[in-house]
Amino acid sequence: MFLGIGKKKWDPKGKHVYITGGSQGLGLALAKLLAKKGANISIVARTQSKLDTALKEVETFRTSPTQSFQAFSYSLSTAPSSAAALAAATAGHNDTFPDAIFCCAGSAKPSYFVEMKEAEYEEGMRSGYWTQAWTAWVTAKEMAKTGKKGKIVFVSSTLGLMSFVGWASYSPAKHAMRGLAEALRSELLLYGISTHIFFPSTMYTPGYEEENKTKPSITREIESTDKGLTAEQAAESLFKGVERGDFHITADLITNIFKASSRGNAPRGNWMVDTLLDIVALVAVPIWRRSVDKQVLAHREEHTAYLRNKGFFDVPSSTLAPEPC
Amino acid sequence: MFLGIGKKKWDPKGKHVYITGGSQGLGLALAKLLAKKGANISIVARTQSKLDTALKEVETFRTSPTQSFQAFSYSLSTAPSSAAALAAATAGHNDTFPDAIFCCAGSAKPSYFVEMKEAEYEEGMRSGYWTQAWTAWVTAKEMAKTGKKGKIVFVSSTLGLMSFVGWASYSPAKHAMRGLAEALRSELLLYGISTHIFFPSTMYTPGYEEENKTKPSITREIESTDKGLTAEQAAESLFKGVERGDFHITADLITNIFKASSRGNAPRGNWMVDTLLDIVALVAVPIWRRSVDKQVLAHREEHTAYLRNKGFFDVPSSTLAPEPC
Repeated sequence: MFLGIGKKKWDPKGKHVYITGGSQGLGLALAKLLAKKGANISIVARTQSKLDTALKEVETFRTSPTQSFQAFSYSLSTAPSSAAALAAATAGHNDTFPDAIFCCAGSAKPSYFVEMKEAEYEEGMRSGYWTQAWTAWVTAKEMAKTGKKGKIVFVSSTLGLMSFVGWASYSPAKHAMRGLAEALRSELLLYGISTHIFFPSTMYTPGYEEENKTKPSITREIESTDKGLTAEQAAESLFKGVERGDFHITADLITNIFKASSRGNAPRGNWMVDTLLDIVALVAVPIWRRSVDKQVLAHREEHTAYLRNKGFFDVPSSTLAPEPC
Repeated sequence: MFLGIGKKKWDPKGKHVYITGGSQGLGLALAKLLAKKGANISIVARTQSKLDTALKEVETFRTSPTQSFQAFSYSLSTAPSSAAALAAATAGHNDTFPDAIFCCAGSAKPSYFVEMKEAEYEEGMRSGYWTQAWTAWVTAKEMAKTGKKGKIVFVSSTLGLMSFVGWASYSPAKHAMRGLAEALRSELLLYGISTHIFFPSTMYTPGYEEENKTKPSITREIESTDKGLTAEQAAESLFKGVERGDFHITADLITNIFKASSRGNAPRGNWMVDTLLDIVALVAVPIWRRSVDKQVLAHREEHTAYLRNKGFFDVPSSTLAPEPC
C-alpha cells in the first residue's frame, strides 16, 4: 500500500458507470474510454440532440454486444432533477444503480467581480458546484442504504486549488467541490464508498470556447502560457487516477505543483513523487504568484480605462441604491 | 517587506469599520476591540434585541466622545439586503462608506451527509458563504467606483483548509470563501483594495453551542482533543493579522499547520516561520489524517447501528422516488 504496490486496480468492465456532462468535452471522452474498457454507460446532459450524437460516438467504442449505452436528458441543477436522472439511469439498466458516478457537468463564465451581475454570480455556484453536489448527495444516500461500495468522482479544476483575477464566481464553486470531496472522503469510509476529485487545467473543449467569450483580458494574459489538454488526455488521466485509487487526481505538471502546495489533509498518491513536488511547490508557487501579482498591477491603468469606457464610474452609488421590492 | 519589516501597520482609529455578525461571538468581540482602538463602528445582525445589548457592551470600550457606534438589523443572505445594510451604515456615518468590512456572519450545522435534508444542505452554503459573499460583492463594486482603498476581511474556518466526517455542508462553504478570497486578493490589486481571510478553529461562542446540538458522535470524538479559542482571543488574532497586512490569518498552531499544508498560492506572512510550518505539515498532516481515518473506520459498526435505529435502511429507494411536482 505504501507506494501503491499491491493495490488492486479498479476495473470498469461490466460495471454501470454514470457520467454527467456526458454529451461533450471531458464527459464524452470519458464515456468513450470507458466503453472501450467494457463498461455499461449512462450519459446525462441537458440537450437531447447532443446526447444523440454523443451516443453514436460512444457506440463506435463498443467491445462487447452485451454492453448497454444509454443517454438521459436532464438538467442537474436541483436535487429532484438529479434524483430523477439517477432513477431513470437505474431503471434503464435493469434496476442497477450505478457503480461509479463521474460528475463532469459544469461550466465557467469568467468576468471581473465588479462587473458581475447578481444572477451571474449565483449561477457560478450552481453550475460549478450544485450540478455535481446534488448528484453526489443522492448517490451517497442510495449507496449507503443499499450497501453498494461504489465510487463518487468529482471534477474540480486547477482553479479549485488556487485562484486569481477573473475567477471570482468559478473558483469558489471549484473550491467548494474540493471541501465536499474532502469531507466525503472521510465520511464515506463508513460505507466503503470511495471518493475522488479531479483537477484538470485548461481543456480544449466546447466549454473552453464558451468561457473565452467573457474572459477578461488580464486573465487571458496570465493564462497565455498555459499548455492545455485535449478532452481525451484529461479523460485518460482521470481514469488512471481512479483506477489507481488516488483521491486527488491531476493531469499536468503545473496543477500537480499547485496541488502539492494545497493538498490540505488529502492523502498523497505516490509518496516519493508527491514529497518531491511539495518541495518544488515551496519555491515555485510563490515565484509564480509574485509574477502574476506584478502582471495584475501593471494592468491597472488599462483596466481603469476599460471600466471608464464602459461607464462604470458614471453611476457613483448605484450598488447601494434601494432595490425595488 | 521581506520579513514584514518596514510595513506600515493598519490603524483603525477614526475609520468606519463594518462588522457583520456583530451582535455576538467573534463579531462582537472584534467590535469591542476596535472600539478600544478608536474606530467608528457599524454592527450588523438579524436580531434587534441582541444588537441593542451588543451596542451597550461596545459603548463601554469607547475611548473618544467623537466615536460613532451604530447597529443595523438586516439578514445578509441576499444581495439586495446586503446592499441595503451597507447603505444604512453609510447613511448612519455621514455618508461615509466603510473603510473596512469584517464579514463575521455565519453559522454551521454539522450532520451526516446521508441524513442531510435538501434544505439543510443548501442552507450550509447560504449561511456559510453567501452571507459574506454578497457583502463583499457590494463592497468591491462600491470601493472600486469611488476609489476607496479599503479592506475586505472574510471569516472562513479551519474547515476551509481541510475537512472530515460531519462537515459536508459547512466545509464546501468555507472552502468557497477561500476560493473567493484568493480570486479577490489578486483582482482587487487593481483598485488597491486589500483582502484578508481568517481561519479560526473552534471558538467558544453561541454559534459553537448551536452547532453542537446536531454534531455527529464521530465528529465530536475527532474534535475532542481540540483546544478552542475564546471569541476575544480569536478577535485579537484576526485584528493583528489585518494590522500586519497578512492575507491568510490564523489564531492557533493546529490551524497554522493545516494552513501550511494548504496555502495554495496565498502569500506567506513571515517567511521563516511559514517555511518551518510547511516542513512540519509535510509530516504532521498525513499522520493526523491516518489517525482520523482509523477513528472513522472503527466507528463503522456503531454508525450502522445508529442508522438502523433511525430507520435509515427501512425505505430502500426513497431517495430516487419521483418528487411531486
